[in-house]
Amino acid sequence: MSTSEEVRYEVNFAGTQTFAVTLRSRLKEIFIPDDPFRHLQDLPPRTKAHRILKYFVPILEWGPRYTFNEFRYDLLAGITVASLAIPQGISYARLAEIPPIIGLYSSFVPPLVYAIFGSSKNLAVGTVAASSLLLNSIIRQVILPEKDMKLYIGIVMTAAFFTGIIQMTLGVFRLGFVVDFLSRSTITGFMGGTAILIIMQQLKGMLGMTRFTTKTDVISVLHAVFEYRDDWQWQSFVMGICFLAFLLGTRYLKFKVPRLFWVSAISPLVVVIVGGLVAFFLHGATHGIPIVGPLKKGLNPISIGNLVFTPPYLQYAVKAGSVTGFIALAEGIAVGRSLALMKNHHVDGNKEMIAFGLMNIAGSFTSCYLTTAPFSKSAVNSHAGSKTAMSNIVQAICMMLVLLFLAPLFKYTPLVALATIIIVAMIGLLEFKEMVHLFKVDKFDFCVCMAAFLGVAFLSMLQGLMISVGLSIIRALLCVARPITCKLGRLQGTNMYRDIEHYPDASTIPGILILNVGSPVYFASANYLRERITRWVQNEERSFSETQGDIHYVILDMGGATAIDKSGIGMLEEVHKYLKKRGTKMVLCNPRLEIIKKLITGNIIDLIGADWIFLTIKDAVKACEFALQEHRRQQQDAV
Amino acid sequence: MSTSEEVRYEVNFAGTQTFAVTLRSRLKEIFIPDDPFRHLQDLPPRTKAHRILKYFVPILEWGPRYTFNEFRYDLLAGITVASLAIPQGISYARLAEIPPIIGLYSSFVPPLVYAIFGSSKNLAVGTVAASSLLLNSIIRQVILPEKDMKLYIGIVMTAAFFTGIIQMTLGVFRLGFVVDFLSRSTITGFMGGTAILIIMQQLKGMLGMTRFTTKTDVISVLHAVFEYRDDWQWQSFVMGICFLAFLLGTRYLKFKVPRLFWVSAISPLVVVIVGGLVAFFLHGATHGIPIVGPLKKGLNPISIGNLVFTPPYLQYAVKAGSVTGFIALAEGIAVGRSLALMKNHHVDGNKEMIAFGLMNIAGSFTSCYLTTAPFSKSAVNSHAGSKTAMSNIVQAICMMLVLLFLAPLFKYTPLVALATIIIVAMIGLLEFKEMVHLFKVDKFDFCVCMAAFLGVAFLSMLQGLMISVGLSIIRALLCVARPITCKLGRLQGTNMYRDIEHYPDASTIPGILILNVGSPVYFASANYLRERITRWVQNEERSFSETQGDIHYVILDMGGATAIDKSGIGMLEEVHKYLKKRGTKMVLCNPRLEIIKKLITGNIIDLIGADWIFLTIKDAVKACEFALQEHRRQQQDAV
Repeated sequence: MSTSEEVRYEVNFAGTQTFAVTLRSRLKEIFIPDDPFRHLQDLPPRTKAHRILKYFVPILEWGPRYTFNEFRYDLLAGITVASLAIPQGISYARLAEIPPIIGLYSSFVPPLVYAIFGSSKNLAVGTVAASSLLLNSIIRQVILPEKDMKLYIGIVMTAAFFTGIIQMTLGVFRLGFVVDFLSRSTITGFMGGTAILIIMQQLKGMLGMTRFTTKTDVISVLHAVFEYRDDWQWQSFVMGICFLAFLLGTRYLKFKVPRLFWVSAISPLVVVIVGGLVAFFLHGATHGIPIVGPLKKGLNPISIGNLVFTPPYLQYAVKAGSVTGFIALAEGIAVGRSLALMKNHHVDGNKEMIAFGLMNIAGSFTSCYLTTAPFSKSAVNSHAGSKTAMSNIVQAICMMLVLLFLAPLFKYTPLVALATIIIVAMIGLLEFKEMVHLFKVDKFDFCVCMAAFLGVAFLSMLQGLMISVGLSIIRALLCVARPITCKLGRLQGTNMYRDIEHYPDASTIPGILILNVGSPVYFASANYLRERITRWVQNEERSFSETQGDIHYVILDMGGATAIDKSGIGMLEEVHKYLKKRGTKMVLCNPRLEIIKKLITGNIIDLIGADWIFLTIKDAVKACEFALQEHRRQQQDAV
Repeated sequence: MSTSEEVRYEVNFAGTQTFAVTLRSRLKEIFIPDDPFRHLQDLPPRTKAHRILKYFVPILEWGPRYTFNEFRYDLLAGITVASLAIPQGISYARLAEIPPIIGLYSSFVPPLVYAIFGSSKNLAVGTVAASSLLLNSIIRQVILPEKDMKLYIGIVMTAAFFTGIIQMTLGVFRLGFVVDFLSRSTITGFMGGTAILIIMQQLKGMLGMTRFTTKTDVISVLHAVFEYRDDWQWQSFVMGICFLAFLLGTRYLKFKVPRLFWVSAISPLVVVIVGGLVAFFLHGATHGIPIVGPLKKGLNPISIGNLVFTPPYLQYAVKAGSVTGFIALAEGIAVGRSLALMKNHHVDGNKEMIAFGLMNIAGSFTSCYLTTAPFSKSAVNSHAGSKTAMSNIVQAICMMLVLLFLAPLFKYTPLVALATIIIVAMIGLLEFKEMVHLFKVDKFDFCVCMAAFLGVAFLSMLQGLMISVGLSIIRALLCVARPITCKLGRLQGTNMYRDIEHYPDASTIPGILILNVGSPVYFASANYLRERITRWVQNEERSFSETQGDIHYVILDMGGATAIDKSGIGMLEEVHKYLKKRGTKMVLCNPRLEIIKKLITGNIIDLIGADWIFLTIKDAVKACEFALQEHRRQQQDAV
């Protein structure tokens, strides 16, 4: 390996691409960084079409190769998930203030649709607590469920319809990256705050209360709990404590003995059945243990006709649909990604969105409300060893059987049993450890998380979410508007130049100031960078002039600047003008491909002179030092 | 200069700062990058207080040192500006559909206030066309001026009050950088579009029409012009053409002979006087030349009591005040900056905002409406050689004399004269050259500019502005969400590693993949970067394996990554896991100060091993090559 230092490379000014090529590759990186069809170019059209069809309908891919051995795993996983889906469906429907049967419907059609179009092996489809409560809190603003239940249900389903439309649109146009703006910290905080809200809501069920507040924030709920303390029913409370102890016990067991996860998975069903039996034999409904009430036998009725597209309600349906859709999507994709990562296979986020969208649209036509792939069910599915999306089909078939034959039996389910199931599910969403970890690693992320957490708990779910996302975006914009610059010095005995704050023994070079511009130079940062650079020069001059004379050269290391726009070009021009006025020469170093083109069209190259643009700091410093020596010699000669 | 390549530096893990120190320095960079008090730390408290007072009230700084020689220049500049302020004040007030006298009032009090608190030597204060029209278009939505003029004026002044409050708040909290998000391209497009709108509006005056549309978009206006073609008055039109020719002639003269700029500066006043005389002697008002109508003698009446703070109007006042305030601020600061740059002295944007804010609040109390430092007046002021803010005082005194003695004379000003003055002023805002330049240098900036231009011209001013700012912010966010990565290769015969797309003769090293991560690793980019890195690895493997065997090392050059957050740490962890599974080692290179701390708290250092984090790519490659050789030797030995 030859490392002769004498070979000198020049900056390559020629290698710039045309606008069309750059634009195409940039657009491709933005929208289809993970182009699923990139290997299909050379195939004959027929094979290509077949492959594309298989891409969009993965069941065609894995269906024909499906084996009985895989089915055994999927069957087990599907049944386990179904046993979780029944109590969760009923519970979460109650959070959304819709009839419990809709919760069961929602675990029948959507999993079937997902099994056809979805590609994840791990995801199990079902309703989610946070989105259910959020749906309720938005749609309540336009119509109260206690006032006109039919209309209310119609709007809830219309919201699911729009959720589907939005998810599909995002998927088709490959805009999946918008979900990236819901950072993990935001989701952690939001889920935690929502869990607190939902747990507080369950106090109603736990205490067997009949009167309650419709507000969701912590303070109103606590107030209501104590205001109506005459309603408290000890029977419910005792039953609740027993169930809670049982559920927490199985949960603890799962952590201790992971292979017994199925005990924890079916325990909610056990609670529902035991609770139902107790309520039935003790006539709970009349003895302080309120029950769910009648559930109608039969499969999902068609609901296309019930969707509401008339003005005052439409906008709330759209709002509820889009907000819950985003959150459900973020949760679903995050879950899919983390499970895929665990098992090391790839998930195409954009295609998953299309599957989610189709499943919600189909759901809204068949009396289902918003569904996604909640973490609890998917983790159970994955643990139970599901091999393909077939486990969702099994789940759907189980739900079908329940709907056809068993639904009326769930009439006796005590509300307190549902409350305990929800509480235990929500405890899993309170990731205090993650919050502590966030605090240790990144204080700002912790703030974002806390903003969501406290905002949700004390203001409202939507406000908490907004504040948190707003903070994240402001941070991202600030990072664009206030890029980090630093002064570089030479590490002694080498030709390496590093941040002198980081490497205090790096030394500066008399007469030369080397600055690192570590980020894209955009309209938002151009003004700041100009001020920052002039400030570096002024500060330097002040401390320098006492010891080593004026600054004759300012070297800008552009290696970290990945892009520049018109304002950035203007900034360089102004800095050059400013420096020129004080007799200082501006030197550029290592401009990247994206920047060189604009330096040429913006005439900056001519302004600075192509001779003064170098590939490495070493070369730039050498040239400056040489010129400085020449300059001094001439001065001495003149004297 | 010793350049022995044998000295090897390690990454400095120790130099990280505590959170408090980092936070403080970051906050300082965000809010007070140009801290005006940074040199005052060591002074005694009394001197310090005196300096700070002088900072906020610059007249205390320059007043005592003011010389008669300076006054001679300021007097000339002030009178010239005043001669421009009279016709502009009347014209722009008509754009805002308020009585012309308010336009004159607005050139009296605000310049006085600015002279006390403002620091720029060049800015001349007055009303602006774009903001006047925008004010009108927003406030019309709640009350029509023809319906209740008193209320309408009250809301216009309330808007000025809120403009002042907002500007002052931004200044006090040093949030001036929000104005940076109105990029130069947006302002160019917005101003151009507004100029088109305003010129179209002047067709009414040029043609002496009495009926017209209240809409502002190009299509509605053209429609109205031809719909009411019976109203066209040839007398107005002839007069208009003559004035237009005269004004354009003097404008042309200014470009040819810059020192005759004053001819162009006083020409609007000449037009007003000549027009007034013609209208007076020919009884223009009854012969097809509509005139301004009566103006009351006397100084600004107090208007605090007229401000409207009641609900339906308040929100429009706040909206109009904030939007026009932002635009006026952006214009004022841009003008101040560019004039300061020309004369090479420094403008503190945040302090200017406080001055603007105070001047608008004071204005709203004294029957003035929104004022700022328009480009036309400031350029004249600067050209006329103003030395201090005294020129604004001179301007104010001239206006006072006009208000006290001459105002009624302007009664006879023909509307067509005002129309021609506005048209010529607006032509200066149509920067077609700049647009062509934008197209050449940066296509995206051109789109942003065109969005504002066409949006303003064909939709509405606010929508055009929103679309354009939205586009700019989306671009900034995309740059955060889709950072550029590239594959590095060794330039032959050197130890330099550069983008192989840019330097095609750079060669890759068998078994080692070197990637450059050129930007902060944030929640918005973490998912993308993970996918991108795994894609690089997969692509590489595919092309590599045919020729040179597997990839054993992936070196991530982090030199360009200025920051990392929790999601970024998670990304590194996941990439490490992914690579480990396929038997590839992840190596980090040159992490910056900001990143090292989080690598430590996030336990990434332990995961990778501190031995595998290098200061330079050269060292990293050396270590990898050595390990590869060892590995191969062991394999051979085993065989």
